[in-house]
Amino acid sequence: MKANPHIAIVGATGAVGEEMIKTLERRAFPLRQLTLLASARSAGKQRTYQGHSITLAELTPDSFAGVDIALFSAGGGISRDFAPKAVAQGCVVIDNSSAFRMEDTVPLVIPEINAGDLKGHRGIIANPNCTTAVTLMALYPLHQAFGVTRIFASSYQAVSGTGAKAIDELAHQVRDYTNQTAPKPEVYPHPIAFNVLPHVDVFLDTGYTKEEMKMQNEGRRIMHHPGFRASVTCVRVPVFRAHSVAVSAEFETPVTVKAARDVLAKAPGLDVVDDPTHNSYPMPLQVAEKDNCAVGRLRKDCALENGLCFWVAGDQLLKGAALNAVQIAEELVRLV
Amino acid sequence: MKANPHIAIVGATGAVGEEMIKTLERRAFPLRQLTLLASARSAGKQRTYQGHSITLAELTPDSFAGVDIALFSAGGGISRDFAPKAVAQGCVVIDNSSAFRMEDTVPLVIPEINAGDLKGHRGIIANPNCTTAVTLMALYPLHQAFGVTRIFASSYQAVSGTGAKAIDELAHQVRDYTNQTAPKPEVYPHPIAFNVLPHVDVFLDTGYTKEEMKMQNEGRRIMHHPGFRASVTCVRVPVFRAHSVAVSAEFETPVTVKAARDVLAKAPGLDVVDDPTHNSYPMPLQVAEKDNCAVGRLRKDCALENGLCFWVAGDQLLKGAALNAVQIAEELVRLV
Repeated sequence: MKANPHIAIVGATGAVGEEMIKTLERRAFPLRQLTLLASARSAGKQRTYQGHSITLAELTPDSFAGVDIALFSAGGGISRDFAPKAVAQGCVVIDNSSAFRMEDTVPLVIPEINAGDLKGHRGIIANPNCTTAVTLMALYPLHQAFGVTRIFASSYQAVSGTGAKAIDELAHQVRDYTNQTAPKPEVYPHPIAFNVLPHVDVFLDTGYTKEEMKMQNEGRRIMHHPGFRASVTCVRVPVFRAHSVAVSAEFETPVTVKAARDVLAKAPGLDVVDDPTHNSYPMPLQVAEKDNCAVGRLRKDCALENGLCFWVAGDQLLKGAALNAVQIAEELVRLV
Repeated sequence: MKANPHIAIVGATGAVGEEMIKTLERRAFPLRQLTLLASARSAGKQRTYQGHSITLAELTPDSFAGVDIALFSAGGGISRDFAPKAVAQGCVVIDNSSAFRMEDTVPLVIPEINAGDLKGHRGIIANPNCTTAVTLMALYPLHQAFGVTRIFASSYQAVSGTGAKAIDELAHQVRDYTNQTAPKPEVYPHPIAFNVLPHVDVFLDTGYTKEEMKMQNEGRRIMHHPGFRASVTCVRVPVFRAHSVAVSAEFETPVTVKAARDVLAKAPGLDVVDDPTHNSYPMPLQVAEKDNCAVGRLRKDCALENGLCFWVAGDQLLKGAALNAVQIAEELVRLV
């Protein structure tokens, strides 16, 4: 990879695309050129990047000529259609959709955990599911130290994980409440304001949702741990930004809260926020717009032999999406 | 107990007290007289009951003369002070606080589960914790059929569980958001609007909260199952009314989704709402102000050998508090 690559963002007007632009800017990514791609509807709009104005272009099969790295975040369909075309034009694709995550030839990477998997990529690199990424930021260091066997987890997922329209929907429904008019669900099948929906992504025949199984499926690949089991309930909550996850984790070897805290305190990209006597624990409002995830509520699990409970929160638009994608791009540049 | 008892409500102006009055009225409880007791501040206010106006009286040590059954919901301190005084005056106390729940001589009762424990009470009967009650409405029938060993659970608890001031706080903070002013937390240590707080009740030295341990401690007493283990994370969410709980439950004997559904379909006080292909699952907005709890998202747990995942929701002001207390009073009348 060139030291100063030409970067493209596919889905530049979406909730994640917007964060990708901001993250590249904030981290002063050493890019030579930035191309912003979107639907025909958004083409022609202007976006400022480091003081320069960039005109959004329409995504077409020819969009990737001269582009070194393309960050895709425009849904699985766009990724499946356009990522192979981009690769054929010599571009490396970092894909935020779930389209390629389970393909053996596609590295699925959280740089703090398995950056080594980037070697030998064949043009497409997958960015993990947001809830999985936030959870693994705390679980993987514990796995390295104590050997995780299985987890039981429940998520509290923000509407921005669904996209910009879902953010508007929550805001509108809250105004509807204030004005005492009935909420009109469009993005979600039921009102999300003052409600919780045990429904994220589509249902499988097993009764789990796809989202729920990503923790186990993607966790196995990222942690190189084919025996890892995860029973998860994914729930959408009326929070704008940042996902939280309650985890009961079982380990092969005994684990104490002190030993776990020592491990987590040294983990990259993670803050330990765990002082309950002073009402200090991770919360969505606190981690929103922060790069680091936060872990707290550490306690010995009372229903497992070698078990630990924890609560982890992270900005799923950042570590769960845009930040992780940009970190992968940084790794690629480092591999020059 | 008399067939037409004189009933008193202690804490008649609170969120639960208000529901107790409505529940007695709605169920046409065969009461001879209703006395409404509150703090000095509320004494003198009027409340209509079945077309009759009742003047709220101040709670004093002499309030219970001639009262047959007193429903207490004014906090543990009031219960500890006044319940023994009421019993000394010949009154049976049904207490919604946690003050007496773990005392061996005090029955802790969910009528659908252990009404038999009411026999031999010594004047005080405890109403269980709201989250525990909602969870056990689905767990106990499964326990009878398959023998539960342990559960891993996470709650999504509504602000009305904290009381009337917390309802106001969420409403105010949402208006603050709409008006773009900073929220001012008073009831909770952090903003609750557009946030989630992994903090319900006080923290214990183990790192669990008291609320979290109620599931195991009260569950053991109510189910007569001293070996039951429950690892729980209790979380406050910006929902006005009705708690939800995600549960992974392990059983002694194999359990299928079909067998579980058959058991749950016959369980009293519980609706099976479980048709994910039509986006049908229990939600707080759906169970609010309903007597029955609702269970759904039934699936074979992928990280347990004999395991079942489910999602249960219930109006914690009703089954978790006022309804259960009134049902206990109904049982007492039945025991005439």
